[in-house]
Amino acid sequence: MKIGKLTIIGLGLMGGSLAKALKAKGVVEHVWATGRRAASLERGLALGVIDHWTLDLAEAVHDADVVLIATPTLVAEQVMADLAPLLSERTIVTDVASVKGNILRAAESVFGELPARFVLAHPIAGSEQSGVEAAKTDLFVDHRVILTPLDSNDADAVATVREMWQHAGAEVVDMAVDEHDAVLAATSHLPHVLAYTLVDALAASGSAADIFRFAAGGFRDFTRIASSDPTMWHDIVLANRQAILNGLDTFADHLTEVRQLIADSDGPAIKQVFSRAKQARDEHFLGQYMVGRKQTKS
Amino acid sequence: MKIGKLTIIGLGLMGGSLAKALKAKGVVEHVWATGRRAASLERGLALGVIDHWTLDLAEAVHDADVVLIATPTLVAEQVMADLAPLLSERTIVTDVASVKGNILRAAESVFGELPARFVLAHPIAGSEQSGVEAAKTDLFVDHRVILTPLDSNDADAVATVREMWQHAGAEVVDMAVDEHDAVLAATSHLPHVLAYTLVDALAASGSAADIFRFAAGGFRDFTRIASSDPTMWHDIVLANRQAILNGLDTFADHLTEVRQLIADSDGPAIKQVFSRAKQARDEHFLGQYMVGRKQTKS
Repeated sequence: MKIGKLTIIGLGLMGGSLAKALKAKGVVEHVWATGRRAASLERGLALGVIDHWTLDLAEAVHDADVVLIATPTLVAEQVMADLAPLLSERTIVTDVASVKGNILRAAESVFGELPARFVLAHPIAGSEQSGVEAAKTDLFVDHRVILTPLDSNDADAVATVREMWQHAGAEVVDMAVDEHDAVLAATSHLPHVLAYTLVDALAASGSAADIFRFAAGGFRDFTRIASSDPTMWHDIVLANRQAILNGLDTFADHLTEVRQLIADSDGPAIKQVFSRAKQARDEHFLGQYMVGRKQTKS
Repeated sequence: MKIGKLTIIGLGLMGGSLAKALKAKGVVEHVWATGRRAASLERGLALGVIDHWTLDLAEAVHDADVVLIATPTLVAEQVMADLAPLLSERTIVTDVASVKGNILRAAESVFGELPARFVLAHPIAGSEQSGVEAAKTDLFVDHRVILTPLDSNDADAVATVREMWQHAGAEVVDMAVDEHDAVLAATSHLPHVLAYTLVDALAASGSAADIFRFAAGGFRDFTRIASSDPTMWHDIVLANRQAILNGLDTFADHLTEVRQLIADSDGPAIKQVFSRAKQARDEHFLGQYMVGRKQTKS
């Protein structure tokens, strides 16, 4: 695989890191970027992350082999309409958004159906930093990238996107769009909603100062994701609304049951829930995560 | 302060670490330990953590200056009745249990009222390991120990317990029993219940394998406490039942509100909740925790 012209729409951590990785592997010739702000594009050029930039979307995507939409989730929906009249037949389009159903629906609304060369993708990677200056060659190494291709996608377009991410060091797996959104709702979006909600509830309580003062390591880890970017997560929640609501309802049902066990002082049943959870988590994470695992008593 | 005879009931990580810390500071002469299992007592002796051990509670506490109840939370309630006929007037009793209201009620039930020289305490510290072999001199350094003395407590007994923990390197603060239990319910017990419940709910779902397979760093941190010891946490939940139920109800009310905002696609209000939470968390933790904080996009 060799990409002649790669165009990144929305140059930040994700697009910048992919550009660096592909350049390091020598599998891309020219990296272009476009976006709303000249400053970050100029910075990307100065850092050698990209080779060219323009604020003109038409110039950016003209004759591109691959266009990567790397804007925030809700912006990505809007970019589609701007792109529609500009794409050549042969250009492959892909994205990095955390939710796939809303992007699919936006594409269908603009194009009538998902274009055969538009391959939906979600790299599961991040960093405490953002912006093109935080881009790094190994961001995706040993991380998973989920593709959610449809049967109507061109096989060679799917193969190119797959190879592109493999060149960046990622493990690429395929899932259905709905499955992706349900799994990510459960493992990522729902925990974020719970963490934000808990911290907001505690902050509103009368003993907020004491609560935070006496919080131990367990609380800090549990609520770490509540320090994530509110704008980005607001986008994700709106984009994956129905799957998150489903996850919330399942969780709330379980919580109601556990609450009843506690109200009944049903020791054996409480211990059974806790033991099942510990066993499930340890089974899945122990191999890869043992080192960082701590048990708190506080 | 100098303790002639310190007796630890239930020799494990907590009691062992305190013994090591006080020995290192030279503020204790003889450390005794007692418990149900000779093996861990013998190990404590071999490791030099303690100086003497016995399975006979009467011998262990005879003429002790300080008796530390360091058993699991629910066992601590029972130890009180065994201790009652054995304590001399001058012996100070203290504990390390994670909940204070149940210990107070157990003491009141056995003694009629909390003995003047029984000082309730809760060191907020832990480790991924347990048992006396995991004991370490600096376990409590820069950790908080909460004392919940009553007005009826002897001032010198409270002062001795305070100094003992200060010698171990801890920052000692006082709180009311009810406040302690409410604050710990919010910052520690409730998050454990939520994490156990979420993992158990996900493990029961049809796509459990995928859910754990595609979980990123945020989920691992969020659920880390669900790998805690189920028996210990079952004890804590039963011991602090009412405060945990109160915390659960407050959380559930907030979650219902946030669910409605998501159902309504009320972007600005969702962003406001997330922003408030991030601000509260960052304000309280940023100084002490910035280094380990990550923001995930997954």
